[in-house]
Amino acid sequence: MKLSAAFESYRIRIEAALPGYLDRLQAPERLVAAMRYSLMAGGKRIRPILVLAAHEMVQGRSQQAVPVACAMEMIHTYSLIHDDLPSMDNADLRRGNPSCHVRFDEATALLAGNGLLTEAFRLIADVRPETVVVRVMSEVAVAIGAEGMMGGQQLDTENSKRQPTQADLETLHRLKTGRLIAASMVVGGFLGEATVRDLDRLRSFGESLGLMFQLVDDLLDATSDPSQLGKTTHLDARNKKETFVSLLGIDGTKRLIDTHTAAAVAALEPFGQAAVSLSEYARVLATRQS
Amino acid sequence: MKLSAAFESYRIRIEAALPGYLDRLQAPERLVAAMRYSLMAGGKRIRPILVLAAHEMVQGRSQQAVPVACAMEMIHTYSLIHDDLPSMDNADLRRGNPSCHVRFDEATALLAGNGLLTEAFRLIADVRPETVVVRVMSEVAVAIGAEGMMGGQQLDTENSKRQPTQADLETLHRLKTGRLIAASMVVGGFLGEATVRDLDRLRSFGESLGLMFQLVDDLLDATSDPSQLGKTTHLDARNKKETFVSLLGIDGTKRLIDTHTAAAVAALEPFGQAAVSLSEYARVLATRQS
Repeated sequence: MKLSAAFESYRIRIEAALPGYLDRLQAPERLVAAMRYSLMAGGKRIRPILVLAAHEMVQGRSQQAVPVACAMEMIHTYSLIHDDLPSMDNADLRRGNPSCHVRFDEATALLAGNGLLTEAFRLIADVRPETVVVRVMSEVAVAIGAEGMMGGQQLDTENSKRQPTQADLETLHRLKTGRLIAASMVVGGFLGEATVRDLDRLRSFGESLGLMFQLVDDLLDATSDPSQLGKTTHLDARNKKETFVSLLGIDGTKRLIDTHTAAAVAALEPFGQAAVSLSEYARVLATRQS
Repeated sequence: MKLSAAFESYRIRIEAALPGYLDRLQAPERLVAAMRYSLMAGGKRIRPILVLAAHEMVQGRSQQAVPVACAMEMIHTYSLIHDDLPSMDNADLRRGNPSCHVRFDEATALLAGNGLLTEAFRLIADVRPETVVVRVMSEVAVAIGAEGMMGGQQLDTENSKRQPTQADLETLHRLKTGRLIAASMVVGGFLGEATVRDLDRLRSFGESLGLMFQLVDDLLDATSDPSQLGKTTHLDARNKKETFVSLLGIDGTKRLIDTHTAAAVAALEPFGQAAVSLSEYARVLATRQS
């Protein structure tokens, strides 16, 4: 995936900062090793990039965008570790390597996920001023709680037992994927003290981007092989889950990807020239091959 | 367990407040049902009682001690749900009823635990003033993260593979049980704007109480049956875990319980008459039968 120079520099800053938040921990070695294994396994770093990009776009001056960005990546990694567990998706491969519970064991993977979530909240609590901490914390907790990501994961586990409609799938993915991606944009805005109107635009971009991202995921799961994708593929078919592809077909899914990409780009139009990088990023994510 | 009138009134306020934080959630029914099932299954409500008692002892005037107290109980419940999972202690019975993963399923139990943790942080984020939120959040996140409760759970899962000494077991339980109990005292102090010196006393009481509590737990696990305790017993022997009882014997464990109870009571001496209820509570917990 080819990033613009600005976004590549965000990615590099994030990669450089992430390990420090684990290295400082005085904690059982195997637990920290499992947290590090999953956190540093690569990945696109989409959520932290969005935090930094949103903060930059609203001309933010916070010195603390990087730790908050890293917290969002730790939360994303927690969700992947738990999602891969045998009782959930039962996926053995993640980013070209054994999943956390395969490389370590189930108990350690469970605790490593919990640990990453908790350390993320700790990182956020260390931000200043306090008024920003509270806004970020509240936004994130709602986005990933029962009304957000956890709710989406619950709907996902129930998916194979029902016959979901396209609207059901959209709800599921708005919660499971969309809320954290939208929250990444919004907390970037909080850090940059964006106006209420601009915060709405950031959220709207993030929601469209999140749904589009999931559509591309479904498409790649159906059409790729593990060597290309670095994770177990055809999981949805194996777990008898309905996806956008099984409901809409390949072409229908591609059309919907275009629709949501256009909506994301349109949400940022009021930012003019400052939105060029984020709009380009949306198009890159829409056409990604892995 | 016989509580003083003041502590019984704390317990009643907590029982009354807890369900409201789940009832308000717009979230998948089965997920909220699992969260409610475990949260409302009774229990001693030790951690939230400690928040309210510490806040009262330092003559706090916060209106928000109850939500923070409830957040501590939600975090405790999350740790129990995950601890009972097959990959952890594999316990089928909790508080006289099937464990969460037995009553629902493993995936739902995993997500319900995560949901309770996240909703707890959301509750804390809603407290005011913001300066208190940040102190509470930071204290709690450190107490239950890799350097605290998660670290303790990790050591616990590794316990059966090693031959721990008494010092190892103390470290394990200080992390796994003690840190959250101590944090409950400390956040009560934060809410009441306690002095640094008083905060140290609250923490010291909580640490001794936490260790004592675990010693009693080990004793009851070895000497009781499930009908008395309402949870699977002899788990430690079944899981080949060393405990204080297997290391020190029944009498040695009882002596250590007395030592830590006395240390807890001594930590609160400077509070004089205001500490009577908490000191009595420590003695009640030391002699509990379930």
